[in-house]
Amino acid sequence: MDEFSFIDSIKQDVYYQPSVLKGIGDDAAVFRANNQDIITAVDTMVEGVHFSRETMDPLHVGYRALAVNISDLAAMGAVPAFFMVSIVIPDDWSAAEIDEVYSGMKQLAKEYRMDLIGGDTVSGKELVVSVTVFGLVPPDKSRYRSSAQPGDVLFVTGTLGDAQAGLEYLLGKHHFYDEAAAYFIGRHRQPNPRVSFALQLQALERVALNDVSDGIASEANEIAAASHVDLHIIYEDLPKVEYLGKLEKETCKPWVLSGGEDFELLGSVPEKDWAAVQQAAEASATRVTKIGWVLETNDTEPFVYLYEENKKSLLMKSGYTHLRQDR
Amino acid sequence: MDEFSFIDSIKQDVYYQPSVLKGIGDDAAVFRANNQDIITAVDTMVEGVHFSRETMDPLHVGYRALAVNISDLAAMGAVPAFFMVSIVIPDDWSAAEIDEVYSGMKQLAKEYRMDLIGGDTVSGKELVVSVTVFGLVPPDKSRYRSSAQPGDVLFVTGTLGDAQAGLEYLLGKHHFYDEAAAYFIGRHRQPNPRVSFALQLQALERVALNDVSDGIASEANEIAAASHVDLHIIYEDLPKVEYLGKLEKETCKPWVLSGGEDFELLGSVPEKDWAAVQQAAEASATRVTKIGWVLETNDTEPFVYLYEENKKSLLMKSGYTHLRQDR
Repeated sequence: MDEFSFIDSIKQDVYYQPSVLKGIGDDAAVFRANNQDIITAVDTMVEGVHFSRETMDPLHVGYRALAVNISDLAAMGAVPAFFMVSIVIPDDWSAAEIDEVYSGMKQLAKEYRMDLIGGDTVSGKELVVSVTVFGLVPPDKSRYRSSAQPGDVLFVTGTLGDAQAGLEYLLGKHHFYDEAAAYFIGRHRQPNPRVSFALQLQALERVALNDVSDGIASEANEIAAASHVDLHIIYEDLPKVEYLGKLEKETCKPWVLSGGEDFELLGSVPEKDWAAVQQAAEASATRVTKIGWVLETNDTEPFVYLYEENKKSLLMKSGYTHLRQDR
Repeated sequence: MDEFSFIDSIKQDVYYQPSVLKGIGDDAAVFRANNQDIITAVDTMVEGVHFSRETMDPLHVGYRALAVNISDLAAMGAVPAFFMVSIVIPDDWSAAEIDEVYSGMKQLAKEYRMDLIGGDTVSGKELVVSVTVFGLVPPDKSRYRSSAQPGDVLFVTGTLGDAQAGLEYLLGKHHFYDEAAAYFIGRHRQPNPRVSFALQLQALERVALNDVSDGIASEANEIAAASHVDLHIIYEDLPKVEYLGKLEKETCKPWVLSGGEDFELLGSVPEKDWAAVQQAAEASATRVTKIGWVLETNDTEPFVYLYEENKKSLLMKSGYTHLRQDR
């Protein structure tokens, strides 16, 4: 059973509590308390699976564990507020190293004025850092991946493939020179959640948002499926930092499409609101790029199409592309 | 560094968000959203540390992981509402077994009309089940361990030492006959959070509450420290199920004082409200027993006193007692 069918199997069809606005199925859950919408999400990092001591210092482990959760809040359009940390500590992590993990979280928490309000500390065989975050949003202003509609402009913040490039460098699989190496390492270890950009969009009526945690191919397919629309993306328009643009395409393309962990925001808005998105980007000093458009789907299962050198192919969740002449 | 000094080291002195009513330092955290108080807590169970396949089926692992969290909500006086599950799955747990873990949670969730609203599923070397719960409470009705005052009556729900007796039996360290064995096993595997009893107390002005997760000695010391009062407990009055009462005292006493994991509620109320507590117990079909009283402390660090066969001793957090003639 893969992760997606597993999630389907545990997902409730009906919720007991009428205050649940969004359960399983987006970047975070949403419930309402007296006209205040509360966003919550949990993300877990396991040593040897999501990070290794080879590629991250303890400080980065903490920073990143909180950052990926804040990114989920950004993708819901929420203001970060609180977090809780459940940590499994193995014998081979010293008290000083665990302190560093918390320092990494506190560094980022301070930036967002987030409070550590609870948690649990237990022992085990491998380090597991599980962070629960809470954010606040005005009523009905949560941003869902199911909100895309035909005619929308598709956009993405920042640049893609950077975190993967950083990881490849740290694993010794690819070499970059000093300046580029430092840039990519930073993007892998200390991603920058797009909170202020998402908040700048709050005045807009309808915005679909997803954060790029598993690669844009995966996130685009999630929006297509949740909104029941087709997405059309132009490969040449996907934003790449100059260091990446210089690489051979066969090296760079998989990183851009499915490298993941860039924690940028992929979204869509009605075409009339595209100018407002550009203003929001400017106001929050965030790069934003129009990368395609949203159309009606003719299929039961919607698709994401990728245009590249004027050839049209299907972009699968995995980042794999294949030509479909008939579409 | 022990767990308590570690928790002190990560605890914030000041909170950025004015909506935080209680951060680290009680059974759960409390924040306010538009005059609705929201309670949240996270508890993590690790295979080989908190349970083993020897003593629990997968269904019990799930049931218990949610039950201990609901017990935290009960200890705050909250109505359970939602939960999220972060699970680390190792190779040696089959999909069918993981389904059973979730079935155990769903069984209990249904009873409390709680919704599973999110989570994370990752792989790792050992099973880790981390549950975040959410509960609701009217403004200023959260029950803190810091609310005990001199003159209060001290009480506990249910009976003590049962969960430890169940564990001893399952580990083959102690033998019980069929009926007693079944009772103790049930108390260990499927504890019964005292939610309805705690809710019946909602009309009372002031109630201190703590759930008995680490043994009554530990919880009593937490109330004494948080409320800055001395607690006086009569050993003979501590409620024991008949099966336990028959055992030698040297076997039974450590289970009763520090066995832990009974998930009963230890609390205190002004003497004038003791009749109301008894009515609440009757209305929720819960056994409640007066076990002592609360007095002013003369010490910088307050103490818990245990009276046993008319001898007075200090009851330490660990359950260890020692005579103090001078007090």
